[in-house]
Amino acid sequence: MKILISGGAGFIGSHLCDALIKEKHNVVVVDNLLLGSVDNIGHLIKNDMFIFYQEELLDYESINDIFCKEKFDIVFHLAANSDIAKSLDDPSVDFNNTFLTTYNLLNLMKKHDVKKIVFASTSAIYGDTNKKIVEDFGPLFPVSHYGAAKLSSEAFISSFCENYGMQAWITRFPNVVGERATHGVILDFIKKLRDNQTELVVLGNGEQYKPYLYVKDLVEAIIYVWKNSDEKINYFNIGVESRTKVKDIARMVIEEMGLESAIKYTGGSRGWVGDVPEFNYSLEKIHGLGWKAKNSSDDAVRLSIRKILGKE
Amino acid sequence: MKILISGGAGFIGSHLCDALIKEKHNVVVVDNLLLGSVDNIGHLIKNDMFIFYQEELLDYESINDIFCKEKFDIVFHLAANSDIAKSLDDPSVDFNNTFLTTYNLLNLMKKHDVKKIVFASTSAIYGDTNKKIVEDFGPLFPVSHYGAAKLSSEAFISSFCENYGMQAWITRFPNVVGERATHGVILDFIKKLRDNQTELVVLGNGEQYKPYLYVKDLVEAIIYVWKNSDEKINYFNIGVESRTKVKDIARMVIEEMGLESAIKYTGGSRGWVGDVPEFNYSLEKIHGLGWKAKNSSDDAVRLSIRKILGKE
Repeated sequence: MKILISGGAGFIGSHLCDALIKEKHNVVVVDNLLLGSVDNIGHLIKNDMFIFYQEELLDYESINDIFCKEKFDIVFHLAANSDIAKSLDDPSVDFNNTFLTTYNLLNLMKKHDVKKIVFASTSAIYGDTNKKIVEDFGPLFPVSHYGAAKLSSEAFISSFCENYGMQAWITRFPNVVGERATHGVILDFIKKLRDNQTELVVLGNGEQYKPYLYVKDLVEAIIYVWKNSDEKINYFNIGVESRTKVKDIARMVIEEMGLESAIKYTGGSRGWVGDVPEFNYSLEKIHGLGWKAKNSSDDAVRLSIRKILGKE
Repeated sequence: MKILISGGAGFIGSHLCDALIKEKHNVVVVDNLLLGSVDNIGHLIKNDMFIFYQEELLDYESINDIFCKEKFDIVFHLAANSDIAKSLDDPSVDFNNTFLTTYNLLNLMKKHDVKKIVFASTSAIYGDTNKKIVEDFGPLFPVSHYGAAKLSSEAFISSFCENYGMQAWITRFPNVVGERATHGVILDFIKKLRDNQTELVVLGNGEQYKPYLYVKDLVEAIIYVWKNSDEKINYFNIGVESRTKVKDIARMVIEEMGLESAIKYTGGSRGWVGDVPEFNYSLEKIHGLGWKAKNSSDDAVRLSIRKILGKE
């Protein structure tokens, strides 16, 4: 099968490339290298099953040429802004990189008769709620522009599926950690501690309590959902049942770096506007389909710290 | 209060102008007259409380100039493509006219520190479901691009409210009928019968059973919601409890035109792809707020036919 992976040189995308090539698929990556890096896919460049285009997904004509040439069976669309906090002052970041990339791809799929899309969505579409978040949760009022752009993407995926006989697998991720990550709390803490070993300043009160999923578990889940569900629109929360507090992440990073730094909290229940302090993410649907994460949230955080520090 | 009404020369927008001017507000209309018409606002042009700009909402610089000059207190955003069936082959119609207009307005509101938006949303965001549609319904998988574009608009309204201290009143309409309508089943039937008085061809089996809300009832509801709710994001289904079958609309149109035409059904439960044959729209929330439609669905249809035919 010939697969387009948008954002395939990115954090999650590059792990997905590894997994799909291992399954003997032909993988074509389109990535603008804004957040992605050739370092992430360097080991694949000489593989016959792998093609890389450094191209801007918003450049309709260039991507059209790639669709003409490659004749894809399916699109895995992962390209997006992935730094939620960064776009809060500038909605155009997520409008362009998270939403418009999806809309352009859908139009190209329609034009080139590509009928299947696997989409990287997010728990951020659900907004800030204390209720149990099942897949059918409503209302959907996202807090961040990132969540808004992903919800908008889902909306048009839905209308394209309905009107043009397409089929979609929508996988909604929580926080994902692991090697090749470009941002996030673990990298932040490592960077801060490299700048100042005596004190680590943590945004919020450290009580933010979230599930962190290891990237290879996530990739396994994406592929599992695609292979094991066959509705017109298949939509699943992906995650891990356990959670980790920000203050425990801080502690683990300090420990793995061999430091004895003090931790200073700025206070407040949110690290930044748009941050969702705690949520209750139902995984019953994907567990019912037969998939569970191998690594707990704590294990995922610990493993990621060690991988990022080059200790594993 | 100085109010911008986008799409104020359109079907619903022009009725909203009438109502807000009656309440002594200063009304500024921006409309590209693609679907709107000066005929709808001709009676207001000489009113000191009314200003009309024929301008394209997608033209950021021109609309920016209007924001600079007029200093709005609030935006009522009604501009959109309103012909759902028309855009099915061309997603760009709703992407541009229904979604991008919203996104541009939100950015201009942010820039000019306008903090309040009343938004014309739609039952089409809920997609095709047999379940009772309460406001908190999920999942949201719209069938039409129109529904997708309105859901995308709601998504960014939400993230703008959260991040820039804005407040929103989201009113979700069902089918709306009345004088000044530009399309819809009543106008279709009248046009078809003017072309051929002997036979009326009806798409589907005529059993599509929907609520039709009279436009002046709708406008009253929009203003009522705005005045009587004060959350960050206020969201309400607007509608009428009773419903009318398409075959009864056909019968009423034939009757009011003084004809004895035969009715021929093309068959199938949907008039067109994206048409939602029947739905069960909960109005408990708006009834709880204290508003109910004055006209039943049948009365609304009958009244609209008579108004459009110039009989009232």
